[in-house]
Amino acid sequence: MRSGLLLGFFLVLLFPALRAQQAADLAVAYQEDAQFIRRIYDDALRYSSSYDWLHYLTKRIGARLSGTPEAAAAVEYTRQMMDTLGLDVVRLEPCMVPHWQRGTYEEVRIVHSNKAGSRDLRAVSLGGSIGTGSMGITADVVEVRSLDEVDTLGSAALAGKIVFFNRPMDPTRINTFNAYGGAVDQRALGAARAGKYGAVGVLVRSMTTGLDDVPHTGSMSYQPDVTPIPAMGISTNDAELLSRLLKEESVRVFMRNNSSMSSEKPSYNVIGEIKGSLYPDEIILVGGHLDSWDIGEGAHDDGAGCVQSLGVVETLKRLNYKPKRTIRVVMFMNEENGLRGGRTYWENSYKAGEYHLGAIESDRGGFTPRAFSAEGHPDIFAEGYKNISRWLPLLEPYGITFELGGSGADISGLKDQKGMLFGLVPDSQRYFDVHHTAADVLESVNKRELELGTAAMATLVYLLDQYGFKE
Amino acid sequence: MRSGLLLGFFLVLLFPALRAQQAADLAVAYQEDAQFIRRIYDDALRYSSSYDWLHYLTKRIGARLSGTPEAAAAVEYTRQMMDTLGLDVVRLEPCMVPHWQRGTYEEVRIVHSNKAGSRDLRAVSLGGSIGTGSMGITADVVEVRSLDEVDTLGSAALAGKIVFFNRPMDPTRINTFNAYGGAVDQRALGAARAGKYGAVGVLVRSMTTGLDDVPHTGSMSYQPDVTPIPAMGISTNDAELLSRLLKEESVRVFMRNNSSMSSEKPSYNVIGEIKGSLYPDEIILVGGHLDSWDIGEGAHDDGAGCVQSLGVVETLKRLNYKPKRTIRVVMFMNEENGLRGGRTYWENSYKAGEYHLGAIESDRGGFTPRAFSAEGHPDIFAEGYKNISRWLPLLEPYGITFELGGSGADISGLKDQKGMLFGLVPDSQRYFDVHHTAADVLESVNKRELELGTAAMATLVYLLDQYGFKE
Repeated sequence: MRSGLLLGFFLVLLFPALRAQQAADLAVAYQEDAQFIRRIYDDALRYSSSYDWLHYLTKRIGARLSGTPEAAAAVEYTRQMMDTLGLDVVRLEPCMVPHWQRGTYEEVRIVHSNKAGSRDLRAVSLGGSIGTGSMGITADVVEVRSLDEVDTLGSAALAGKIVFFNRPMDPTRINTFNAYGGAVDQRALGAARAGKYGAVGVLVRSMTTGLDDVPHTGSMSYQPDVTPIPAMGISTNDAELLSRLLKEESVRVFMRNNSSMSSEKPSYNVIGEIKGSLYPDEIILVGGHLDSWDIGEGAHDDGAGCVQSLGVVETLKRLNYKPKRTIRVVMFMNEENGLRGGRTYWENSYKAGEYHLGAIESDRGGFTPRAFSAEGHPDIFAEGYKNISRWLPLLEPYGITFELGGSGADISGLKDQKGMLFGLVPDSQRYFDVHHTAADVLESVNKRELELGTAAMATLVYLLDQYGFKE
Repeated sequence: MRSGLLLGFFLVLLFPALRAQQAADLAVAYQEDAQFIRRIYDDALRYSSSYDWLHYLTKRIGARLSGTPEAAAAVEYTRQMMDTLGLDVVRLEPCMVPHWQRGTYEEVRIVHSNKAGSRDLRAVSLGGSIGTGSMGITADVVEVRSLDEVDTLGSAALAGKIVFFNRPMDPTRINTFNAYGGAVDQRALGAARAGKYGAVGVLVRSMTTGLDDVPHTGSMSYQPDVTPIPAMGISTNDAELLSRLLKEESVRVFMRNNSSMSSEKPSYNVIGEIKGSLYPDEIILVGGHLDSWDIGEGAHDDGAGCVQSLGVVETLKRLNYKPKRTIRVVMFMNEENGLRGGRTYWENSYKAGEYHLGAIESDRGGFTPRAFSAEGHPDIFAEGYKNISRWLPLLEPYGITFELGGSGADISGLKDQKGMLFGLVPDSQRYFDVHHTAADVLESVNKRELELGTAAMATLVYLLDQYGFKE
C-alpha cells in the first residue's frame, strides 16, 4: 500500500506530464515487479551463498594475482560453483596474462637523517615494478607533489635522486573514488616520469585519505623510451614523517626489492549462462574480477564482486526465474595489472557478433550499495537513462538510485554494442582503508552489506530482462 | 555551477508551482548557503577533533555505565572539552541515576543434554537483572518465540523452568532498526512476562541479525507485581545450538550471575552554549548520550553521538560563525537504563519556559550518515517538514535526505515545545554487530564516517539557525 502511494508520488515527480490516473495505472502494473524484487531481497538476505563463497576465495585460496597458482585455483573454484548452480552453459575463456612477482624482500629505510637516524618505513613494491638489484639503492630524496613538478624540476634536480610523490588524496571529496582519481597518476605514471630525468627510484605516498601504517600497492607502468626504475609505496604515516624531515634537512633513503616480471601465463575468464527463452541473443552480463593483488586476500577487491555476481544467478535460479534474455555471469581475469581478461572477452564478443543489452560490474567493494552508475554509447544513452529512471520507485525502498558515471574496467569495452553499462556503487568511505593492502581481508566485509549488493544487482538484471531499456 | 543547475532542477521537481525563473532566483539565494555548507564539510573532514575525543572516551575512559566512576570521568572530560571550545556557557545539570552493577561472575551452561553434554554458552547479564544467588539456578529450558506464547503456555508449562526467548531479528528488513524493533520486546519484557507464570530465569537470543559468538546486553525491567527473575542474553550461535538441541530432547541449563541494583547516584548532563545574537531564546540543540553499557567501550553507542555534537560547535566556532539563535550542545546521562538525564533536562526546560526550535540527536552509530529522521508536534510538523524540504538540494551533494521517523530518546520529550526534532540516520547495516556488546570499540568506528556525521549535523544546525522552519 505504502509503496504504491510512494510510487505514484515518484512517477508524478519524475514525469510531470503524466496524469495522476496514468500514474496509478502504472503503479498497478509495477506491483508484480515490486513483489518479485521483494522476493529477491528476501532470498539474498536469508539464503545467499555469497559470503560462504567469499570465505573460500579469501581464506582457503587467498590472494590471487594473475599468473599464480592461486589465480588458477580461483578459476577452478568458481567454475565448480557455477556447475553446482545448474546453469545452461559453463565455460572457460582462455587469455594470456602478465605474471609479475613481488619477490622475496622489499624494504625502504631512512639511512641518514639527523632527526630520525636510521628508520624502516612501511613499504611495498608497486605492481609491475622492477627490482633494485640485491645491493639496493641509496640516494637523496626529492619530494614532489605532481608529475608536472617533476617536469619543472628536470634532470638538474632529479638525476641520481629518489623521487618521492607525496600529494595526498583530498579528504574533502565526499566520494573517495574522486579523491583516488585525483592522486593515482603519481602511482601509475610517477616512475616513468621521474625516470625520464635520471631519477634512480620512486617512492609513492599510499592511496588512502587516512593516516595509518598500511602501505598500498597497485599498478604502475613504464614507458618504452624511458629506462625503468624501481617504485615502491610507503604508508601515509611514513610519508608524513619523510615530508617533515625533508622540510628541515636532506634525507637519504635506502630502498631494496627483488620484484620482477616473469613470462606470460595462460589463464581464463570463467563464464556461465542461463539461456534466454524469448531473446537468447540479448545478453545481460553480471561480473567482477577474479584476480587480486598479492597482499591481503582480495576480499573487497574484487572477491566481493565475484561472489555477488554468482549470487545473482543463484538467487534467480532459486526463485525459479525463467529469463527472457540470456543472463551471463563472468569472472574476469587480470583486471588489476593488464585487463587481459576484459580485452579478450570484448574481442571475442565483437567477433561473435554478440549484443550485450546490459552489463553490470561490481568492483568498488562489498559495502552497502547506494546506486548504479550508468554509461553507454551516445546513440542510446540519453533515451536509455530516461527509460530506466522509471524504475527508481522500485529501487527506492532499498536505498538504490541511478547516477551518471563509469561502469567497470572489465565491461567498459562493450560500449560500442550499444547496450547500457552499469557499475554497482557502494558506500565508498571505508574502501581506501583496505584497497590494495594486506588489510583487504574477509573480516573487513560485512555479510549483510555484501548480500544487499547481490540483491541490488539481481534486481537490475531482472528489470533489464523484463523491459530492456528502449521502451 | 553544477550544483546551481541541480538545485533549480530539484526545486522545480519539489515545487511544481514554482516557475523556472523563481527557481533560478532561489538558486542564487541559496548559493551562499551552499558555499558555507561546503566549508563545514571541508573543516570537519580536515580538522574535526571528533575522532580524537572519541579515542579518549573509549580508550582512556572506556565503558561508562551510569553511576560508575567512568561515567563521572566522562562528565568531567566533556565539560573540559567544552571549556576549550570557548563556549558562552558551560554547565552541569544534576540528575540522580540508577546504578546497576554487573557483578563478578556470569555464566550459562548446558548441563544435561545427550547431544551437547556439558557446554558453556556465551552469555551476559541483561542490564537491570537481579542475580541468581551464589548457587545459581538449574532448570529445564522451554523455548518460546514471543511474549504471547508465554501467556499461552502459562504456569503449567513454565513454572520452575528457564524460559528461552528465541525469535530472531528479521534479516530481510533493510533498515536493521526495524528488525530490532520487531524483536526487542523479548529482552525488555521477557523476564517480567515469564516470571508471572513461575519461571525461575530467562535467556534471550541476542539482538543481532547475524550469527556470531557475541552476546548482547541491554535494558530490561520488572513489573511491580511480579517476582523478579534473573535474565541473561546468549549469543545467536548459542541460541541456534540450544534451539536445535531442544527439538530433539529436553535440555537442562545452569545459569549463575551476581548482578544487582545499587543505590541511586548523583550524576549530570553536560551542557554548553553559544548564545544567539538575534533570537537568544530560540534554542537549537545537538546531543548524544554520555553513558554506555558496561561492556565494550561505548564507541558507536553513543560516544560517536557525543563527539559529533561537540564537533558541531567546534566546527562552527572555527568557521567563526555567529549564530542568530542559541546553539546548545548536550551530553545526556543515563539514556541506556533510565533516561534520567533526558527526563531531568525536559523537566527543567519546561519549568524555565524554554523553546527548542530544533533538536538533533545522534544515537544510531557513527556510520556514514544518510538522512535525518524528523518528528514534531502535530500543530507544526506538516508545515515544518514541507518547509525544511526546500533544503534538500543543499543536502543532496552530501548524500543526506529527510525521512519521517523518531528523533532520539533524550530529546523526544521536547515535542510539546513545538520545535522540530531530528535524529541522525546513518547506514544501519553494521550497527547490530556491535550494539551493547564487547565489540563496540573504537576500532569499529571509521574516522571519515564519523566526521561526515559531524558535518551533516553542523549543516542542519546552520540551516535551522538561518531560516528556522516556519518560513
